[in-house]
Amino acid sequence: MQNKIILPDSSIPSAWYNALADLKNPPAPVIHPGTGKPVGPGDLLPLFPMGLIEQEVSSQRSVPIPDEVRKRYAMWRPTPLYRAFRLEEAIGTRSRIYYKYEGGNASGSHKLNTSIPQAFYNMQFGRKRIATETGAGQWGSAMAIAGSFFGLEVKVYMVKVSYKQKPYRRMLMETFGAGVVPSPSADTACGRAILAENPDSPGSLGIAISEAVEDAAGREDTSYALGSVLNHVLLHQTVIGQEAKEQMSIAGDYPDVVIGCHGGGSNFGGIALPFLQDKMAGGKRNPRLVAAEPASCPTLTKGVYAFDFGDTGKLTPIVKMFTLGHDFVPEGIHAGGLRYHGASPLISQLLSQGLIEAQAFAQLKVFSSSIAFARAEGMLPAPESAHAVHAAIAEAKNADAEGVEKTILFNLSGHGFFDMSAYDDFLAGKLADHEHSEEKVREALERLPKVVV
Amino acid sequence: MQNKIILPDSSIPSAWYNALADLKNPPAPVIHPGTGKPVGPGDLLPLFPMGLIEQEVSSQRSVPIPDEVRKRYAMWRPTPLYRAFRLEEAIGTRSRIYYKYEGGNASGSHKLNTSIPQAFYNMQFGRKRIATETGAGQWGSAMAIAGSFFGLEVKVYMVKVSYKQKPYRRMLMETFGAGVVPSPSADTACGRAILAENPDSPGSLGIAISEAVEDAAGREDTSYALGSVLNHVLLHQTVIGQEAKEQMSIAGDYPDVVIGCHGGGSNFGGIALPFLQDKMAGGKRNPRLVAAEPASCPTLTKGVYAFDFGDTGKLTPIVKMFTLGHDFVPEGIHAGGLRYHGASPLISQLLSQGLIEAQAFAQLKVFSSSIAFARAEGMLPAPESAHAVHAAIAEAKNADAEGVEKTILFNLSGHGFFDMSAYDDFLAGKLADHEHSEEKVREALERLPKVVV
Repeated sequence: MQNKIILPDSSIPSAWYNALADLKNPPAPVIHPGTGKPVGPGDLLPLFPMGLIEQEVSSQRSVPIPDEVRKRYAMWRPTPLYRAFRLEEAIGTRSRIYYKYEGGNASGSHKLNTSIPQAFYNMQFGRKRIATETGAGQWGSAMAIAGSFFGLEVKVYMVKVSYKQKPYRRMLMETFGAGVVPSPSADTACGRAILAENPDSPGSLGIAISEAVEDAAGREDTSYALGSVLNHVLLHQTVIGQEAKEQMSIAGDYPDVVIGCHGGGSNFGGIALPFLQDKMAGGKRNPRLVAAEPASCPTLTKGVYAFDFGDTGKLTPIVKMFTLGHDFVPEGIHAGGLRYHGASPLISQLLSQGLIEAQAFAQLKVFSSSIAFARAEGMLPAPESAHAVHAAIAEAKNADAEGVEKTILFNLSGHGFFDMSAYDDFLAGKLADHEHSEEKVREALERLPKVVV
Repeated sequence: MQNKIILPDSSIPSAWYNALADLKNPPAPVIHPGTGKPVGPGDLLPLFPMGLIEQEVSSQRSVPIPDEVRKRYAMWRPTPLYRAFRLEEAIGTRSRIYYKYEGGNASGSHKLNTSIPQAFYNMQFGRKRIATETGAGQWGSAMAIAGSFFGLEVKVYMVKVSYKQKPYRRMLMETFGAGVVPSPSADTACGRAILAENPDSPGSLGIAISEAVEDAAGREDTSYALGSVLNHVLLHQTVIGQEAKEQMSIAGDYPDVVIGCHGGGSNFGGIALPFLQDKMAGGKRNPRLVAAEPASCPTLTKGVYAFDFGDTGKLTPIVKMFTLGHDFVPEGIHAGGLRYHGASPLISQLLSQGLIEAQAFAQLKVFSSSIAFARAEGMLPAPESAHAVHAAIAEAKNADAEGVEKTILFNLSGHGFFDMSAYDDFLAGKLADHEHSEEKVREALERLPKVVV
């Protein structure tokens, strides 16, 4: 076969796949942070437009993609699927490695798959403005671009340490017309309280979420937008796995293992959920689905499955998920998009039922694999995506050791052009491995909210 | 039509188009800088492998692309052609605007089209190492990546001011295994001489070329490589225009105007030369071919057509070209790739014969057009490519003013992810327009070499 499989525009999926429809048990209720009772759709209206709330709770297996969204997807979708012939040769494996590449758009990652429908439904609902947070900047960039497409004003609360470390990301968002402030900021009560206590706070994703939620809740013209974790976000990302299935079929192959890196769950869900559908259908297609996370923030491999807040400020609804505790602050690794204390409730439920697996990797080996991949394949992975690259190489090597050949598919969720300083630090020997602190996790877990369902 | 036209791998051209074969007059001879006599192929062997020297002087219309090169092209080629529906709407034009996008590879620009065959022929010829220069970094990145593909060591002399301004470019080259030094460097006699005179020299492309040529000439295992200007480089870039012709035909359209930004000529030649072939064939296809250059370095619009050195150190062969003088130093605009005093001899000859046109634009309007394009089309142009974006918008507006509809095609040669500080400066109002200094040009032109042919 050729080294890449390109699909025509007609292969852009016409519907998103809703994995909730195939779950045997219903998801745990979402709890209102104020009342301690399950939230209803009305409780979410200050934050989200009705179109997204409906998707959040939908049990319909197939959710049609609006024409306006599909046309925007056609700017860069379908994305290519590559066979990593040269990587296979470089590592000397007998296994076949495929990867789907989601970095070929202006946001540089898969995040545009969901920011576009989110902007669309907000525009349709009459909202004029979006408040959101960003860590490493992939999500903020995607929201800024989608906002510019649909005429929405976008305000991004960017974790202060990233704001300083990744100025190019801030500039990209501004070039697309978004306003960006370092978080904690003086623009919200939550930000001001944190600054009063610690003017030098480096910020965290949990704090930035609190600020964006406060902003959106306080203005009728404004919605909040989240780039991962929620059902509707994972739903939108299923275009990745759907296309990949068609491309694998054209390649005449089917994956034994499907791998995605895991932060909040949207990238992993995007590639894995359509394959979960095959798994749930029974039959002989039963791929392993592997979430690759950083050892310094091992939500799925070392967290607990419990009710917790999505943010540090305790403003978000409480959801049942794998969590390290809402005030756990992971080490400052370069894969900023994977530094989240929680996980998607949907992915968490799948993990708790043994339908997916999770693996944690320390960053030195991850960067080493990423550079081997780049030199062989001519593509530079984002540090987040590099976790999937490393997991795929590890799978291939394990298969070789067992004397078997496997078909391995992973999602290369974004490029690393905005993360060059991470590679620079690695090449200069300045990076270290950070295991998570068991004590910090133990302490954070003591502060989980008490929820009685 | 759909907003993009994607071709299958089978549409990757099987041969490069050599426009020299269609020139009515032979090109002027290339002069040896030492002897003042025309150079023969043997004179070039210390710098280039025989495969490239043959291409440099070939008069064969169609030069077959080796399989190994075509396979590497297939990593990202054929590149997409887009119809800029949303840009047309945003500027309210009745004209149709199309663009070919060459930024979708790890080097981020069209430069990989030539660095791959250059690395291939060097590898085939037994050379182990490449010395080259880079200004803004697009070429150095492309050479670093191609070197990693074919197992060649790559040493890049990077103009010092860019080395400091664009650290991410330096890091990208190092990630692909290249060695990068700021130029002027202490690694060459030429660099040491300049440093002795001015330790704070910011460097220039002319100086960096001198260093790379000295390096390559002094080591048998090493070739020099150039990312533009020369015939073989333009030859390799003709894959762009060849694909674009097929895509325009699928769109059922044909350009009235073909536009490329112009620094040394390889990007402009890449998109324009295959359309020149139509023009030379007579018949009704007679597109205007427009080179867009910066007003601060107006080689084609304000230079003279004369014999000159390609570098400041007078180490390169002397060629007949449009030039502002080999020691003219343009203002430090952000489109670093367009800051070259000379131009490709081939493009220069076409301009002197009235077969192509040139237009110069100041940078503020260029950045303004680029941002309008980005917000409409969701792609961020490199500052160099932004000159073509602006020229295309100007063509459309002129056509509207004349009450006609035109078909406009331009090449979007690269993305601007490594140039965010340029956009940041523009948005912050920190950029100014720089006209070239007529006095500086007059002085530089007084120092042209005396050549008698």
